[in-house]
Amino acid sequence: MEKGEEVRNKQVIFRDYIENYPKESDFNIREKTIHLEVPKDSNGVLVKNLYLSCDPYMCILMKKIKGPSVFTSYTPGSVTTGYGVAKVLDSGHPNFKKGDLVWGTTGWEEYSLVTKPEDLFKIDHTDVPLSYYTGILGMPGITAYAGFYEICAPKQGECVFVSAAAGAVGQLVGQFAKLMGCYVVGSAGSQEKVDLLKNKFGFDAAFNYKEEHDLDVALKRCFPEGIDIYFDNVGGKMLDAVLLNMRNHSRIALCGMISQYNLEQPEGVNNLMNLVYKRVRMEGFVVFDYYPLYAKFLDAVLPYIREEKIVYVEDVVEGLESGLAALVGLFNGHNIGKQVVVIARD
Amino acid sequence: MEKGEEVRNKQVIFRDYIENYPKESDFNIREKTIHLEVPKDSNGVLVKNLYLSCDPYMCILMKKIKGPSVFTSYTPGSVTTGYGVAKVLDSGHPNFKKGDLVWGTTGWEEYSLVTKPEDLFKIDHTDVPLSYYTGILGMPGITAYAGFYEICAPKQGECVFVSAAAGAVGQLVGQFAKLMGCYVVGSAGSQEKVDLLKNKFGFDAAFNYKEEHDLDVALKRCFPEGIDIYFDNVGGKMLDAVLLNMRNHSRIALCGMISQYNLEQPEGVNNLMNLVYKRVRMEGFVVFDYYPLYAKFLDAVLPYIREEKIVYVEDVVEGLESGLAALVGLFNGHNIGKQVVVIARD
Repeated sequence: MEKGEEVRNKQVIFRDYIENYPKESDFNIREKTIHLEVPKDSNGVLVKNLYLSCDPYMCILMKKIKGPSVFTSYTPGSVTTGYGVAKVLDSGHPNFKKGDLVWGTTGWEEYSLVTKPEDLFKIDHTDVPLSYYTGILGMPGITAYAGFYEICAPKQGECVFVSAAAGAVGQLVGQFAKLMGCYVVGSAGSQEKVDLLKNKFGFDAAFNYKEEHDLDVALKRCFPEGIDIYFDNVGGKMLDAVLLNMRNHSRIALCGMISQYNLEQPEGVNNLMNLVYKRVRMEGFVVFDYYPLYAKFLDAVLPYIREEKIVYVEDVVEGLESGLAALVGLFNGHNIGKQVVVIARD
Repeated sequence: MEKGEEVRNKQVIFRDYIENYPKESDFNIREKTIHLEVPKDSNGVLVKNLYLSCDPYMCILMKKIKGPSVFTSYTPGSVTTGYGVAKVLDSGHPNFKKGDLVWGTTGWEEYSLVTKPEDLFKIDHTDVPLSYYTGILGMPGITAYAGFYEICAPKQGECVFVSAAAGAVGQLVGQFAKLMGCYVVGSAGSQEKVDLLKNKFGFDAAFNYKEEHDLDVALKRCFPEGIDIYFDNVGGKMLDAVLLNMRNHSRIALCGMISQYNLEQPEGVNNLMNLVYKRVRMEGFVVFDYYPLYAKFLDAVLPYIREEKIVYVEDVVEGLESGLAALVGLFNGHNIGKQVVVIARD
């Protein structure tokens, strides 16, 4: 492609605010054209999107967010945004040049003009799959790293429970915990995911929460001595059952509550008094706060990947149309591992 | 009294486990006799009880506690126990001698044989009211001190909210916060208490939660910029409303949840997702863990009392019969300040 060339740009348009989980009909796909150059006087970068990431937080942006929030709702009628890996085709910013690979927030479209490129991360290590920068080496990776090491304050031998454990974040938290010598149990929503947790990620045990009549009983079976660390990705009933099983001076990292995102009114959590009796610290966190740790994080995790001490499972689909179905499927637990959408491979 | 003398010992007997808040009929008062000496081969101490303390946790001990807990239920048919100030009449323990003043767990009776005197604290400073060792200088005092300074990690100028603010713990937390240069608001259950908060304890504002139609609105009125620190003594609906008003990186100390102790099933708390968005740390604590700080605590608080930088309000009744009514009244908010029962003055 030549600079300034006009090409087709297929785009995913967010139609209007939603109340529950997203459906494919909440989006339109349209074709526009785009000039492959940065407008004059812009310090943006023009990128070709390679891999797009399906992440649970996107459901939050599809709702009308009331009051001040760390998030800003999508604008109805505009291109959907999300994390992705992209290649710079033209740059108006001194830190980026044509050919650079980057990850960060981009559009759900073939080409994007990124107007705040200072929020993009440059990709320096390409001996690992590029798509990993939507997952283990991107936002979900730092989420797992910061949430586990910074919030959970883990110690060797502790008992760790992870919900949504086969997801983009959960699979990493479990493997970080195993590398620390912890006893690790995960929950997931299908037998296939449970098998993955035990056979691929090395979890000590796992259970399918949909098959358990009583989550408290399931947790007591897996943790007869109780839980030292709970990495919560789901909230709701699971969190409530976990509260009954926390040990003295245990920690809960609240990463997100995917089970609650489709509810008008979130479910009530009844067992908070256990936080007092057991002196539990429960702490929410947002990954943005930990982006300054990114270099340190890469230094820790890249060797694990290269030495195959950590494995990472992706669920890959091709094209924006399939990507939409995959995004919607995320909220029904259809994905096995990190949900990635390939737009182009280079 | 002479050593070994046999005297009358009026006692409050816990009848049987309760389901809701305590009633006076959950107890019997009986008269026994006691020999004022420690039995041979016992390392206990025989004390004369002077002041008894009415504390919310006693309601928890009146219920049948299921599963492992930091608390042990009262034994039906036995003497009720609680915190108190007492004078040693006879000692089988090398650390205590006749005439020593102590505070710690004793019986609701005129004289008690304390069989684990190593858990008692010796009272060295008697230039302050002895009854203070049931409150500001006893368990509630360390509770306020540890919960505020250790759990809340306060900074000058922060916005602090305290529930049950006129109680034994709350009045201290608010005054500690004012001494740190914080903006402090308290909630309580009557106009009289609200006046006390504003006029006696120096809170910047206070409201009667019973008069507020919408707690969220009341909190937004008092904290237009949000809350940095919430010292929670009540749980339930107040906690849920507070969650909507916490600022980024704020802290919640969970001290106890008196609003929940009479419920078969605790109320659901719906707004936990705010802990994620706002990166809130919510942490339960139990005062026992902080007893090693007692000497440091006294060094900090005794000068505040002597210099009248902190005031302390007690609600004092005389005798075991009135004490029972006062204990029951605690759960209906009848007390104004720390509820103390005088058994004897020396």
